[in-house]
Order: sequence, then structure tokens, then C-alpha cells
Amino acid sequence: MKTGDGMRTRFYNARILTMEPGRDVFLGEVWVIEDKIIFVGTEEEGRSFCELHKGAIMIWDREIDCKQNLLMPGFKNAHTHSAMTLMRSKADDLPLSDWLNTQIFPVEAKMTGEDIYHLSKIAILEYLTSGITSVFEMYLTPYTVADAFRDCGMRCVQTSCVNNFSQSVELLEKYYLELNSRDAFNSFLLGIHAEYTCSKELLEKCAELVHKYKAPFWAHLQETEKETKECIERYGMSPIELFDSLGLFDYGGGGYHLVWTSDKDREIMKKRNLFVVTNPGSNLKLASGIAPITKYLECDIPVAIGTDGPASNNCLDMFREMFLVTGLAKVKDMDARSVDAAEVLKMATVNGARAMGLDDCDYLAEGKKADIIMLDLKQPNMQPINNIVKNIVYSGSKSNVLMTMIDGIIRYENGTFNIGVDPEELYSKAEEIKKRIYD
Amino acid sequence: MKTGDGMRTRFYNARILTMEPGRDVFLGEVWVIEDKIIFVGTEEEGRSFCELHKGAIMIWDREIDCKQNLLMPGFKNAHTHSAMTLMRSKADDLPLSDWLNTQIFPVEAKMTGEDIYHLSKIAILEYLTSGITSVFEMYLTPYTVADAFRDCGMRCVQTSCVNNFSQSVELLEKYYLELNSRDAFNSFLLGIHAEYTCSKELLEKCAELVHKYKAPFWAHLQETEKETKECIERYGMSPIELFDSLGLFDYGGGGYHLVWTSDKDREIMKKRNLFVVTNPGSNLKLASGIAPITKYLECDIPVAIGTDGPASNNCLDMFREMFLVTGLAKVKDMDARSVDAAEVLKMATVNGARAMGLDDCDYLAEGKKADIIMLDLKQPNMQPINNIVKNIVYSGSKSNVLMTMIDGIIRYENGTFNIGVDPEELYSKAEEIKKRIYD
Repeated sequence: MKTGDGMRTRFYNARILTMEPGRDVFLGEVWVIEDKIIFVGTEEEGRSFCELHKGAIMIWDREIDCKQNLLMPGFKNAHTHSAMTLMRSKADDLPLSDWLNTQIFPVEAKMTGEDIYHLSKIAILEYLTSGITSVFEMYLTPYTVADAFRDCGMRCVQTSCVNNFSQSVELLEKYYLELNSRDAFNSFLLGIHAEYTCSKELLEKCAELVHKYKAPFWAHLQETEKETKECIERYGMSPIELFDSLGLFDYGGGGYHLVWTSDKDREIMKKRNLFVVTNPGSNLKLASGIAPITKYLECDIPVAIGTDGPASNNCLDMFREMFLVTGLAKVKDMDARSVDAAEVLKMATVNGARAMGLDDCDYLAEGKKADIIMLDLKQPNMQPINNIVKNIVYSGSKSNVLMTMIDGIIRYENGTFNIGVDPEELYSKAEEIKKRIYD
Repeated sequence: MKTGDGMRTRFYNARILTMEPGRDVFLGEVWVIEDKIIFVGTEEEGRSFCELHKGAIMIWDREIDCKQNLLMPGFKNAHTHSAMTLMRSKADDLPLSDWLNTQIFPVEAKMTGEDIYHLSKIAILEYLTSGITSVFEMYLTPYTVADAFRDCGMRCVQTSCVNNFSQSVELLEKYYLELNSRDAFNSFLLGIHAEYTCSKELLEKCAELVHKYKAPFWAHLQETEKETKECIERYGMSPIELFDSLGLFDYGGGGYHLVWTSDKDREIMKKRNLFVVTNPGSNLKLASGIAPITKYLECDIPVAIGTDGPASNNCLDMFREMFLVTGLAKVKDMDARSVDAAEVLKMATVNGARAMGLDDCDYLAEGKKADIIMLDLKQPNMQPINNIVKNIVYSGSKSNVLMTMIDGIIRYENGTFNIGVDPEELYSKAEEIKKRIYD
């Protein structure tokens, strides 16, 4: 596995799913130079492309025979808290408020920025195995989180978890300014932890920032019925109504979870061009409920998909989440026609990219970022090949992920990682951190 | 990968989860001779075992360093229709009755016994990747199904899908007598397709067989609300009440699905020692509902887990099913404490074995059948190792399955199959069958 700047990679003999609207899977080639896709098409179109470009003969660092396996854009995990790998399988079978107050906040109080750096990398390994090329992240120490993603070469869009007890609006602005101009892998969107952990004053100060930068705004939003009801008791408004009344959504943005929304909430979401990031695995495990995905689609509200963190899900697996999105919609509506596979795959790729502001990572197309995955269609769960999109969503698995390329560099291939650190070393670090914090 | 009769395999340096009640994971060894486990214990206990047996020095065909990965009993997939691989991704997003009548029955009418033989083997490949060592199968041609499982060396307990339109009670008796004495891998339990496809006369004839052989009885049971209501309209009784009134459950047995049951149904289930086989993936995808697992547990009714067939799920993956069992129970009860990981893992192993009459496949223990899997704990989704049982159920994946051994023979190891046929050959067969039936 070769890596480095200036890499030129040719993928050939591939089935290709570009995710562009109306374009079916076809057999062809994808060419990557440095961080970008320069060509996507059939073998014949590739020859024409060379002729057009003055008979250029491409010199490749690597030519990969895809053996008719599938190339497609990487998955966008649109909500996570990576470093919570520490609490995986430590904090299960508890309702959200107990979970937060007894198992999460006390542990987080002991975590250092360096802990978070190493623990995030364990999540990055897992993202790679699941074909995830970008994540929408929220955690305690944005700089060390950004360091982890930069050092591993994975794309990370962060938002802040500012609340009454940690971080501040001043820090939020500092993160926004610094993390948007730091390196190729990191960016930052304005946001807070959630309504129930933020005072009105804090929200008002955030609204000033939103207007100052004309920027979208994000938060954990209407995840549980309790949270939603208590906000209505406090303000006479749901969190969405409250945020909208404060001008927080004047430049769009969205919310994570959004399990409990009213018609009025959805009207605001539509009007403000908000995104929903649904987290079905986490919503089951914490017994938060089943999000009304069909209603969002009926209102043309775009939905993206996130795993949530490894303490709440506990798996960072987009395949499991994709099946859950469609399966739960079907059972919630008691209608097997609800939310079909093509819709779900769009959520996990294109909509995720748009929600995260990664407009150059949505399709597998010329000029787009080379964030590409290869899926093994020769595993038995993909056979026979009746319909590739349905196979991915209904029977696909992370075991089908043969390769994950980000920004033109292959970071995972045939079970081997290329993130500059040995996984065993990270596991040892995690053991040390566990001992220090839990023992 | 060596195979054959008389194989002697020593697994060492393994974490071991025997699934025996109250026994925690420990570091040790598992010794297999032919089809049986002859020793499970620590390295030191192994030395004592040898001394006790007159200083016997074991000669091994193969000694496997498990590198502290996990050995545990294989999963029991307690409800499936393997050959429906043909219809995978062909018959999605439809309610159960349309699905059966427009996409399944017309295709099945064209399938031959030989088709079913090859198509079942594609499912067998997938079972092996998911650590499944036995399946509870129901399909159209029991002899060619049995041939497929025998030829691949996988354990298969069949039941009949007899109904008004195919097979007969006479055939059911013939299957029962012949498939229970044919080879080491196959057995057969009495059963029918479902109440809604069987006349009362047929059910009464089945009851005679049940009494003649003092045998348990199985069926698709109360999968949808419609099916349950229509039975009540026909007979004034639910399917469970009807079957019980006919004496069909006098020797136990159980049902697949059991999504829609009343307190009265559950009383009968408890009284007759019936098993529930829950199929959560299929119940979501066909919008059948969420089974009341917590209520079954409250009544001490044992629950096992099945994937259902690849046309309804569409994935033959026990990890996805295990997460669904706990996740759906939590959201149905709106209580994150419902049905914890240990309970679910017992369902997927011990309870499955008991439901299927495979009492010698329940634990990883001396004298039991050598149906053993090895799970990779060094994949990032299993790290850090806070709690192995929770890791398996909440974040485990088929990508963690390093090895699947059945009856003392390794059938799957590090991504390579050992079932006597090249997967590519099976995929080509499936393409031929698809062309003949669909085109």
C-alpha cells in the first residue's frame, strides 16, 4: 500500500456507483490524482479522455484491478463523539439522563486532551472498516480531536459541545476561526451541546455569532420526549421553536436525533432548510424512540445518518445504521414501502456531505475529492447480484469494505490500516487510560 | 486448513466463553477430537488432565494459537429459508401478503430441488461468515436441502412447510422418519407453514402425527396482526389457542415470529413449554411489528433468534439480529434497561440449540459437539475490552468472525471457505437459475 502526496491511482474493471441522481451502476474506471478524482467513466471513455487531453499517457503510481467489485463515495457519519470508545460496553442498559449523569459526565471530567487524541484514533480505525470517509464530530477538546483526524488523514467536521458547564461562546468563536483554516482534513461548524444544558443567555450569545458569521447552527435536538417537554414547560416552546425565535437557524444548520418533533417543528425545519441527522442505533439503545423519517421526507427535509458515539450505540457501523433507518421507518409506519434503499443510501452519502458542508465529497465524479470506498460484491451476502443498492442497504456489512480512500490516500485495504500508528499501540494506550480513569 | 475424520485440534492462548451459567470468560485451551470437545480449561488444568489420563501426550493434527481472541459456541440461527438467496433484493419494500403472493410464491413455483440445493449453499457460505454453526430450516424440498447441508458439513434442523398447496402430512411423516436417521448433520422436527395456509383437517392430521411420535410441533405463528385477527374471525381463537385446542402443542415445540400475542397466548406458551423464535430484522423489513420479548422473558418463555430467509431480512447475520433484539425491546418498552446483552447472547446460542433439539451443541464444554467459533477481539469495534459479552452484542459484527468450526471441522477461517465447492461456482449457478426463472 503506497501513500503520499502526488499519488496517481487508477481503478479499473470496477462497477461504479457515482450517487449522481439517475445514474445507474456501470462498469468502468476511476482515476485519482493527488486528492481529486480526475476521471470517472467507461474504459472507452477513458481512451477518449486521453486523446482529448493531447494523447496524454497517464503514468500511474498504482493501478488497481477492482475485479468488478463496487466503487462508490465513502459514507459520511454525520454525528459522533469518537473518543467515547473509552466507555464502550461500560455504560449500557441505562436511560439517557442516568447514562449521562452517572456514567458519562463523571468519566469525561477525568479525560485529558491527550486521552481524547488516542481514543479518537480507535474510532477512526473503526470508521475505516465501515467505509466512513468523513465524520461530523462533537467532543470536549476540539484541538486534540482535530489533531487525531489530521494525523490519520480522515476528514472531520467538528461542532462544539459548548454548554453551561464546559467551553464557552468565546471558545466557540475561537474554534470556528482556527479550525476552519488549520489543515485539509478539519473544518468546524457553529453549535452547542443541547438546549437542556444551555442557558438562554448562552443561546443568545450563540445567535450573535450565527449572525456575525452568517453561519449554520447545530445541536443535539429533541432526542427524547422528556427533553422536548421540559423545554416547552420552561419556554412555552419546543427547542426548535426556541432556537428559531432566537435567530439561531437564520442561516440553516440542523439537529442530531430529532426523534420527537411536531408538525410545527417540521414547518420551521423546512422553512430554515435544516438537516436532520438521524441516529437510529443510539435511539434504540437509549430507548429514546423512533424518529419520524417518513414525515421528514414528506416535508422535503433532508436526512443524513450518524452512528452517535461508541458509548451510546455502541458500534460505529454505517451498514447497521442504514438498515435501521429503513427498518424502523417501515415498522413505525407499519408500511413495508416506507423509505426505500436508494433513499437511505443517499442519506448515508450525499446528504451527509451536504449537512457537513462537504459539497465536494458528495458524488464520485470528476473534480470531486477522492473519498472512495470499494465494496466486495463477492461475499455471499451480496449474492446473487439482483440489485446492488438494495444489497448494500439490506444485506451489506462492514465485512464488504475492501478499501477506504480519503483525499486520494488509501487508509484501509484488505483489513490493514494505514494511519501512521499500529492499532495494538492504540489499544494499549486505551488500556492505560482505562486503568487511570476507572480503577 | 486441514480437514477430515479423526482430526485432533488444540486451541490455546484463547479467551473462552463457554456460555455455561455463571461462568465468566477465562484464558485457556479447548481440545477437540473428531466431532467432540474433550477438554475446556486453563493451561494448568490441561496439564492435570493429561496426568489424570495416565500421562497421555496428546498428538495434535493442528495447534492453533488464538492470540487471546475469543472462543465460544457457534450461533444457532433458529429460523431461515436458505434457498431464498435467489430473491434477495428482488422482493423488497412490500407488505407480507403482497410479498408472498406476488414475489415469492410465483418464483418458488419455478424452483427445482437442484436449484434449492445450490441456492442453499450460498446461504451456508453466509452463515459461516457470521459464526452460525446450525440452522433451523424450512423450505420446499427437504431432501435437497439436507443434501446441501450434509455436503457442506453444516448442522441443519429442518421442519416442513406443509400447507394446503404443497407437501402433505404423509410427506411430513416420511421426512420425519427419513431425515432423522440419514446423516450426522441433518435432523427434522414436525411442523407446518402457518395456520393461514393450512385447513383445519390438515392441522388435525398433524395432531395425530404429534401424538404418534410424542413430538414437538413448529409453525410460523402470529407474525402479523392480520394473520392473528383473521384466525380469530375464522375460529374464535388465536392460532396458538387453536393449535393448543387441537393438541398440536402437547409435546412442546414453538413458533417463528410471534409478534402479536395476547396474555392468554403467553399462558398457553408457558404451560406447553413452547419456544419463541424471534426474527426482528424480517419483522422490521416486512413491517410486521416488534415482538414483545420482555413479556416472554417475564413469563419465563425461552426466546431463540432467527434471521428468517434472505428475501425477507435480507441478511443472514446473527450480529445484526442480536442488536435488534435488545434495541427493539428497549424502544418497545421505552426502557433502556430491557433485555440486556447476556440475555441476548444466551438466546443466540443456548436457547437456539435447545429449541432445535441440539442439546449437545449448547455449551463449549467437555463432551459437547465441537461447534466453535473464534471472534477477533483485536478489531477496533471490540476495543477497549471493557466487557466481552456486551462488546459482542452491542458492537460485534460478522467481520469479527475469524473461524467457524462445525462437528470438529473448520469450515471457515480468515475469510476462506472449506465446504467442498468454490463460492464463485455457486454464484455462477445462481446467475443461471436467475436467468431461467426471472428472464
